[in-house]
Amino acid sequence: MNVPLKEIADAIRAASRIAVTAHVRPDGDAVGSLLGLVLSLRSLGKQVTAILEDSVPSNLTFLPGTETVIQPDGSVLDIDLAIALDTATHERIGEGVVKAFSATPKLVNIDHHGTNPGYGDLAHVDTSSPAAGQIVYDLLVVGGFPIDDAVRQNLFVAISTDTGSFQFSSTNARTHRIVAEMLEAGLDTARLATLCYQSFPKRRIDLQRAMLNEMAFRAGDRIASWNLTQKLMRDVRMQPGDTEGLIDTMRSIDSIVACVIFEELENGKVRASSRSKDARVNVSNVCVLFGGGGHPMAAGARLCGPIEEAASRFLSALEDEVRRLD
Amino acid sequence: MNVPLKEIADAIRAASRIAVTAHVRPDGDAVGSLLGLVLSLRSLGKQVTAILEDSVPSNLTFLPGTETVIQPDGSVLDIDLAIALDTATHERIGEGVVKAFSATPKLVNIDHHGTNPGYGDLAHVDTSSPAAGQIVYDLLVVGGFPIDDAVRQNLFVAISTDTGSFQFSSTNARTHRIVAEMLEAGLDTARLATLCYQSFPKRRIDLQRAMLNEMAFRAGDRIASWNLTQKLMRDVRMQPGDTEGLIDTMRSIDSIVACVIFEELENGKVRASSRSKDARVNVSNVCVLFGGGGHPMAAGARLCGPIEEAASRFLSALEDEVRRLD
Repeated sequence: MNVPLKEIADAIRAASRIAVTAHVRPDGDAVGSLLGLVLSLRSLGKQVTAILEDSVPSNLTFLPGTETVIQPDGSVLDIDLAIALDTATHERIGEGVVKAFSATPKLVNIDHHGTNPGYGDLAHVDTSSPAAGQIVYDLLVVGGFPIDDAVRQNLFVAISTDTGSFQFSSTNARTHRIVAEMLEAGLDTARLATLCYQSFPKRRIDLQRAMLNEMAFRAGDRIASWNLTQKLMRDVRMQPGDTEGLIDTMRSIDSIVACVIFEELENGKVRASSRSKDARVNVSNVCVLFGGGGHPMAAGARLCGPIEEAASRFLSALEDEVRRLD
Repeated sequence: MNVPLKEIADAIRAASRIAVTAHVRPDGDAVGSLLGLVLSLRSLGKQVTAILEDSVPSNLTFLPGTETVIQPDGSVLDIDLAIALDTATHERIGEGVVKAFSATPKLVNIDHHGTNPGYGDLAHVDTSSPAAGQIVYDLLVVGGFPIDDAVRQNLFVAISTDTGSFQFSSTNARTHRIVAEMLEAGLDTARLATLCYQSFPKRRIDLQRAMLNEMAFRAGDRIASWNLTQKLMRDVRMQPGDTEGLIDTMRSIDSIVACVIFEELENGKVRASSRSKDARVNVSNVCVLFGGGGHPMAAGARLCGPIEEAASRFLSALEDEVRRLD
């Protein structure tokens, strides 16, 4: 079902009007892989639409090309080729983008999620790759497509953020060799790392302080969780992107094997974002029980509120998963 | 003054009894580069003493070979060759180690600090290298010395911790190529990253909470500082190594260009650990004013107490440095 990158490169070369998207609530890999590909194909002379269901979060607007990303306006795009990046299911490109892509003669699906069923006309799902941005880099190399500093900035941020700055087990030798090539080409990776990891708004400290004061432990300190309420979000004037990486503080405690942030949404639903530190504890399995999914070590789900009850149901299932270690 | 690594490899090959040390209050690069070199030379058949003035901090005792590190007992070592790693001045190997090395016919100095005067009989100071561990890796390659998994673990931790997980501007293409080689050789870098960055004792959360509650801002939120008192250390039962990386939370705020932790020592002195986020703000220059030193982006000094007065003097000088941006 997987086609080689060469075939996707050929399809791109044959097209003139291309649209590229990624998943809803885009993260660093979604936006970085999107803009890296879009800027390269524009340099190649293609007419390229960069479209995302949700806007680029404020913590990623430093990425070159961000200002050219549009959101769906209900119209259907007149294109030869559509490309979905980093998106495990077709629906996760978002309702508006699904409609915008409804007349495309060909849909390309480039992803690294194990749960991706291989939707689309040409699918390349490489679960050995730690980031969609890494696959896009290899696509540009295979296709001989232009790679300039702006492309490198986007793909570096995609790779760096999706590997937790090269710390996750998904990181491989190719990941480091790509970054070595980027550094040799003159990319200022330190500047990008500062923008990704050391440029949080001061209000994020308020969130972090609240988390440290309120987080709860269970299962013999092996599970940590925190409820992020609408009230706190209003109090600190939270913006999208502010919670990025916040869960890492909980994960950094030695006794913890799994942790969750429960986020109260405006519609009364509760979003659970979970992480595992132990390959034997699969948080994706827990999230699937609540209609969610993701990777074994990082997964999410949406539950019905109120937040305390949602947290209680989820934590109970997570505790069952963690107890398997006993 | 700098000799090529080949010459140091030859000196090692010619010696039978070798002692290796690093600086007082050893960090990840000190311990990792030390043990990486020591384990390789032991595999080579050398009789090698690993000696450190201060014991290996608890957060690094997972490194293979830690249990073989000794501390000075007042005796003078009977050796052919002594090697100091990651140590900017001869004195910083510590009084006890200086004495232990007093009869060595040859002292080798391998370091990456710009302030290193090139002491010793054979000096190799490479300021382009982000970590002493990276220089040691190249030394082992140049010498054709054994590199096994235990050696790689130590050198990976040296490199990863001294580059802030590949985020600091000192990180170069060679850094990433070395890690790629390590991954290809089967090194589990994710496990080591978890041990380095996600294995803090729960009491560290208490320190972090206190820091978030007590940290102070000045110079238009461009400087953040925190006073870590003996009282808090007692309250949370702090251990050496617990403060590792704590300053990163302050540095992660977008408006901050420099930050400091003032640590009240048992002898009444105050240790200032400072970081810069802007290449134009040189915290080493500020630390030099108080008899300290380090790198432009990370430096330290010891001041006379009490802590509030020490902080006030240091912050005043740091503010002068930061005001140069105006």
